[in-house]
Amino acid sequence: MNKIRIGILGYGNLGRGVELGILQNEDMELVGVFTRRDPKTLTLATEKSKAYHIKEAREMADIIDVMILCSGSKSDLPVQGPEFAALFNTVDGFDTHAKIQDYYEKVNEAASKAKKTCIIASGWDPGMFSLNRLYAEVILPKGKGYTFWGKGVSQGHSDAIRRVEGVEDARQYTIPIEEALDRVRKGELPDFTPRQKHIRECFVVAKEGADLKRIENEIKSMPDYFSDYDTIVHFISKEELEKNHNKMPHGGVVIHSGKTGLNDENTHVIEYSLKLDSNPDFTANVLLAYARAAYRLNKEGIYGAKTVFDIAPAYLSMKSGEELRRTLL
Amino acid sequence: MNKIRIGILGYGNLGRGVELGILQNEDMELVGVFTRRDPKTLTLATEKSKAYHIKEAREMADIIDVMILCSGSKSDLPVQGPEFAALFNTVDGFDTHAKIQDYYEKVNEAASKAKKTCIIASGWDPGMFSLNRLYAEVILPKGKGYTFWGKGVSQGHSDAIRRVEGVEDARQYTIPIEEALDRVRKGELPDFTPRQKHIRECFVVAKEGADLKRIENEIKSMPDYFSDYDTIVHFISKEELEKNHNKMPHGGVVIHSGKTGLNDENTHVIEYSLKLDSNPDFTANVLLAYARAAYRLNKEGIYGAKTVFDIAPAYLSMKSGEELRRTLL
Repeated sequence: MNKIRIGILGYGNLGRGVELGILQNEDMELVGVFTRRDPKTLTLATEKSKAYHIKEAREMADIIDVMILCSGSKSDLPVQGPEFAALFNTVDGFDTHAKIQDYYEKVNEAASKAKKTCIIASGWDPGMFSLNRLYAEVILPKGKGYTFWGKGVSQGHSDAIRRVEGVEDARQYTIPIEEALDRVRKGELPDFTPRQKHIRECFVVAKEGADLKRIENEIKSMPDYFSDYDTIVHFISKEELEKNHNKMPHGGVVIHSGKTGLNDENTHVIEYSLKLDSNPDFTANVLLAYARAAYRLNKEGIYGAKTVFDIAPAYLSMKSGEELRRTLL
Repeated sequence: MNKIRIGILGYGNLGRGVELGILQNEDMELVGVFTRRDPKTLTLATEKSKAYHIKEAREMADIIDVMILCSGSKSDLPVQGPEFAALFNTVDGFDTHAKIQDYYEKVNEAASKAKKTCIIASGWDPGMFSLNRLYAEVILPKGKGYTFWGKGVSQGHSDAIRRVEGVEDARQYTIPIEEALDRVRKGELPDFTPRQKHIRECFVVAKEGADLKRIENEIKSMPDYFSDYDTIVHFISKEELEKNHNKMPHGGVVIHSGKTGLNDENTHVIEYSLKLDSNPDFTANVLLAYARAAYRLNKEGIYGAKTVFDIAPAYLSMKSGEELRRTLL
């Protein structure tokens, strides 16, 4: 069997997760990790892996079947996505929901022109949660769906706290409110304010001599990020943060309930939930499954940008159609 | 907009569910219900619906876009599936897991020859549960999946009880064992015996003068159906059965947990659960979503038998690709 030759662009937590995830998929092998840093300075998780400078990627295009883009959605992917789509089949976890359509168009143009297959916005949200929103909505059109996140670390909110003056480091947990979850699970269809769905709990390391009261107020009143939520702020030591908050757990729930019957007498509740010890590891494994799909679709001559909505589930599995029907159907 | 013209073959609980489900999907309309009975004797759920004899279906092939096969998997579908695949795009809920591959081959041959698109074994298990088994397995290959059913009425087990001498009527509930669920939800990977996963609770109406002790023993020792389970038998009156056990609730859970990390230090749990007031209504709505897919795939020239694994999720939705990316991704 020819293995699917994977490249990794960017070596943060997600890139490391992909490196390790490849070891779980016997039909894949890692060609190399590509970085903007000096590749000699990278310490990779496994001995066999090799690091290259990002400039070397182009020349290795013919020995890489799928490049997994593990860089940030904010400033890196909007540039790298279309750029790499012109050279490689790619998979990424672009997660700025509001800009996905714009990103899609740019990647689609580059990929279509280059006859590459590029799966964007994969992962769990966007990704598996999106799929579950879709499946539930089409089955129960007379209904309503809800997404809850957490308990888990939000990178974006942690970063926002770090930008407050006097803050040295911070970790923000998004926590779904049990009462809201319970109502939706019962088949009720409430309209929630943000405050009714999630709590935001922050663990903050302040710089020496900083005004804690001011920091707390600035966090709690921060628009978009915190002002619409009940926010709890704890000040802790750097040591405590490193000891008790060094993991990146996350997860959440997509719940959709709807009615059927002549007089809407039947209620149905569909729930999809994730409990993840490591957000980047799980995301990495989703990207790898979609890398398999990108590889195969490209072999079949199906080009352009795709999302999880466009991929038939069978493309994600190593098993043949018959095996899938025999073992999983 | 041209509506998708749906035919329904067979008018039991599932057929009735499809009739009502069509009203929830504004891009669909019902052409008619086809039955082996005298169509005049059928009382349909909605006034506008029309019943026809099954013999009339063939002549109406050009005004029906998708025929939904709502007959039984045991003896009807094995014959009707391939027969109707030669005339119509079809969707069915064939659910004899062990015979799906054989059924697939027969439907595939007929559908491919006739350039029809036929989606088999749709519904929730097989169907949505199968999809979730697949998605979870490809994301967490170093893991294990579990399916629990219930609490809900099992038609097959209820029928089996009815075949016991001295039984007038019966209803069997499959109930998952909470302790087993909890272990799997914690990320443990136990090997369960059937007895450790589910309880079987039976409500039995005995004929007058029947030997209750013998009936109970015969049920509990019935191979395949009950002997491998802890089975509870209640004898109740016909009135009580009709009053308290006249609904067809069902549901269940697919849970898959797996490990990631350099030393398998991270555990992830994926859970998909359904709580359904009406098993046939929910199944009907799944079939309808896949009818939309069958219709579109056929227009695109993609023929043959398909399962939920072969259908890209976007085909299930009325929304355009862009709408999906903007609203659900």
